[in-house]
Amino acid sequence: MKKTVELYEGKAKKVFDTDIEGVVIVSYKDDATALDGLKKGTIMGKGAINNRISNYLMQLLEKEGIPTHFVRELNDRETAVKKVSIVPLEVIVRNISAGSFSKRYGVEEGIVFEEPTIEFSYKNDALHDPLLNAYHAVALDLADKTEIQHIKLLAFRINYILKEFFKTRNIKLVDFKMEFGRLPDGTIVLADEISPDTCRFWDYDTNQKLDKDRFRRDMGGVEDAYEEMYRRVFG
Amino acid sequence: MKKTVELYEGKAKKVFDTDIEGVVIVSYKDDATALDGLKKGTIMGKGAINNRISNYLMQLLEKEGIPTHFVRELNDRETAVKKVSIVPLEVIVRNISAGSFSKRYGVEEGIVFEEPTIEFSYKNDALHDPLLNAYHAVALDLADKTEIQHIKLLAFRINYILKEFFKTRNIKLVDFKMEFGRLPDGTIVLADEISPDTCRFWDYDTNQKLDKDRFRRDMGGVEDAYEEMYRRVFG
Repeated sequence: MKKTVELYEGKAKKVFDTDIEGVVIVSYKDDATALDGLKKGTIMGKGAINNRISNYLMQLLEKEGIPTHFVRELNDRETAVKKVSIVPLEVIVRNISAGSFSKRYGVEEGIVFEEPTIEFSYKNDALHDPLLNAYHAVALDLADKTEIQHIKLLAFRINYILKEFFKTRNIKLVDFKMEFGRLPDGTIVLADEISPDTCRFWDYDTNQKLDKDRFRRDMGGVEDAYEEMYRRVFG
Repeated sequence: MKKTVELYEGKAKKVFDTDIEGVVIVSYKDDATALDGLKKGTIMGKGAINNRISNYLMQLLEKEGIPTHFVRELNDRETAVKKVSIVPLEVIVRNISAGSFSKRYGVEEGIVFEEPTIEFSYKNDALHDPLLNAYHAVALDLADKTEIQHIKLLAFRINYILKEFFKTRNIKLVDFKMEFGRLPDGTIVLADEISPDTCRFWDYDTNQKLDKDRFRRDMGGVEDAYEEMYRRVFG
């Protein structure tokens, strides 16, 4: 497989086209941004860690019957994935209150919900990814009703699988963000990444943060947290 | 029926307890606020117009099988209503894009949706009434799943009835805000008001605004718009 043109450069990844129809290569960077792009930095080794963790989790999910974009890990930082058209929604599932949820609704972090919540944001940098609901997404023609319903079911199932997996690693899956893509035949698959950039991970016993919140909140120990998550996943 | 103590003073209404168990008196003011309380003013005659329009619509809805808090109109500005415990959600149904929807999602006003949308905000001044969805409302214990489901059904049914009614008055019901309350036995009823303060009304032919947007946006003709809506409803 050969890289051809660069299709896209995002905040944490580049995507290249390849000589194979329907397959692109994702290349993970060490660059980190937060707070709606206001905060920028580098987390040494992050690209490789996220690449490997995300690939591990995508394969785990595939085994449990969740369709994903994963094709093959190429090297430390690069992975071949199916070319998809991204559904312009950030899909967030929460098991425990934290982050924007706590801020928006004025509640402390750490409240364990009886049932997980799901929410959608409109992926739109200029509008700052505003929260929306399924009715809005349909009215704005971002996805149709059947797709939204399917994405909800997939998201809750993925949450269940990942929560159980991370429990075996002594980690609480607090919340996480997913993106989904459409294959040319319309099949919805899990895309983007599942990593300490896109999840909140707390140590099961101490609630120590092992994710990007350490960067967002200038807590120090950012690289150590990513490395610790790597060890826990592969350990 | 006699007023006893003042229970609450809001932006546009006061509520008084009465000597009758389970009944309170709502008194409509001419005061108007907008833009999250930043803009304040007076709309002469608004209190009486909103009182009478809201009572007319509540009775119309009752006839169609929608339970409301309405008991009896007492005079121009005052109405007896059932005492309820308000569900702390603002429920907004939209038929056409406008206002915060257009701003939040970067689309022009006037897009007619194929199907109406519904959204909830958390009634909380300190948090600026943030948008939330049914999962959040349950997680925050603002209402239970059954109540939310019931409120959704009522809200869409109310929208259908009102949209058809206003069509006969040559008015488009663009969007509107509802609040619901719980009676002591848990029954959910439509509460608050349905008026040019809480609805967007556009003339069917010209799209002329006949609601509080004329105040919010300093368009002039505010009193005339409220009076025109009064004439159209009672016409």
